[in-house]
Amino acid sequence: MTFKAPDSLSEQIARHLGEKIITGELKAGERIQELRVAGELDVSRGSVREAYLILERRHLIDILPRRGAVVSEMTPRHVRNVYEVNILLLTQLARRATPVWQESDLPEFLQLLDEMDGYLQRNQAIDFHNASFRFARMAYRFAENPYLEEILEDLQPLMRRTYYYAIRTAKIEMEKSMKMFRDLMECILSRNTDGAVKTLELFGQHQCETVLAFLENAQGS
Amino acid sequence: MTFKAPDSLSEQIARHLGEKIITGELKAGERIQELRVAGELDVSRGSVREAYLILERRHLIDILPRRGAVVSEMTPRHVRNVYEVNILLLTQLARRATPVWQESDLPEFLQLLDEMDGYLQRNQAIDFHNASFRFARMAYRFAENPYLEEILEDLQPLMRRTYYYAIRTAKIEMEKSMKMFRDLMECILSRNTDGAVKTLELFGQHQCETVLAFLENAQGS
Repeated sequence: MTFKAPDSLSEQIARHLGEKIITGELKAGERIQELRVAGELDVSRGSVREAYLILERRHLIDILPRRGAVVSEMTPRHVRNVYEVNILLLTQLARRATPVWQESDLPEFLQLLDEMDGYLQRNQAIDFHNASFRFARMAYRFAENPYLEEILEDLQPLMRRTYYYAIRTAKIEMEKSMKMFRDLMECILSRNTDGAVKTLELFGQHQCETVLAFLENAQGS
Repeated sequence: MTFKAPDSLSEQIARHLGEKIITGELKAGERIQELRVAGELDVSRGSVREAYLILERRHLIDILPRRGAVVSEMTPRHVRNVYEVNILLLTQLARRATPVWQESDLPEFLQLLDEMDGYLQRNQAIDFHNASFRFARMAYRFAENPYLEEILEDLQPLMRRTYYYAIRTAKIEMEKSMKMFRDLMECILSRNTDGAVKTLELFGQHQCETVLAFLENAQGS
């Protein structure tokens, strides 16, 4: 995969709207009006329509005939479904990466883990989570599979969105995540592929349950 | 997932160009010119650009800054990569579907297998392969995971494209495929999830090797 630079106008619009969906400013089921977006951002309707296609690919909106773009649903079932696919793909990444890394690959991973420790100490939940995505991205090169990479990248905004639903995640949760990252790294260091897969599965399931618990609390309140 | 009907103009353009890529009329590395497509099909450039985004999502083109749309590469490595991801997702579908189907779900699957037997007898390779995709599609409802479904749907054109590279597939290959479908069905019928997963993995690997063998022959000739 090539990270496209510079971003096209439609990519910029997609990022702008995407952040609003991820952070919850635009809510599930809300309609996004093409004309209004074009007016507010002073861009053509064509560029907005292109942005919609990018957001649809990233699972953040649905494009409905005659109704236009609608922010995609985010029910407990959606959360379970996106975690299921994400865990499946991340464990495949671990299966490919664990046997093949070289000594010279290690420093940047160990450095990132230390960085995450810092976010944990300072209770910076968002930075912590962004760093955990970077951990996966840094591992892409070992899988050498651009399709796996693209699909994971397209799921990433939705994973961030589920996380914002659980934004009040307690520090104890970050500590658990940090411990799981350390366990994962230990498996990787000892070339224990099965252990890395198992750790990631448990990690993903735990995170999923955490998000679901907050989601249910939020709906109950 | 909802199958969107009626297709938008950009979806129709994407299908039109997609078929040319899948069948090899447009070749890997070939540039697709926006103005020319717009002129030939008598549509706006905006609609063509939207179609490009759909084709990019389906892994059939790359959109490059300043160069526009280019038909994506299809080297042996690409074939291995797309099979890796496709097998991963299809085995997950089998894991979800095998334990939960009901007696009333069976007839349409058994009927499809008979239909495939017919294509095999009449040596209709393309119909046979299209039917094998329908088999997977009919199983989506058991996984109840729209993300899994969307990702498989987005990979499907590329899987068809790899198949066209091996269009001269001998009848013996179709017979092997048919046997594997029968084995898969037997595992599903006996709720043997591990067996279904294993059969699919072997099936996918074998198909991948077949495509690769043809690809290497074609390059050598």
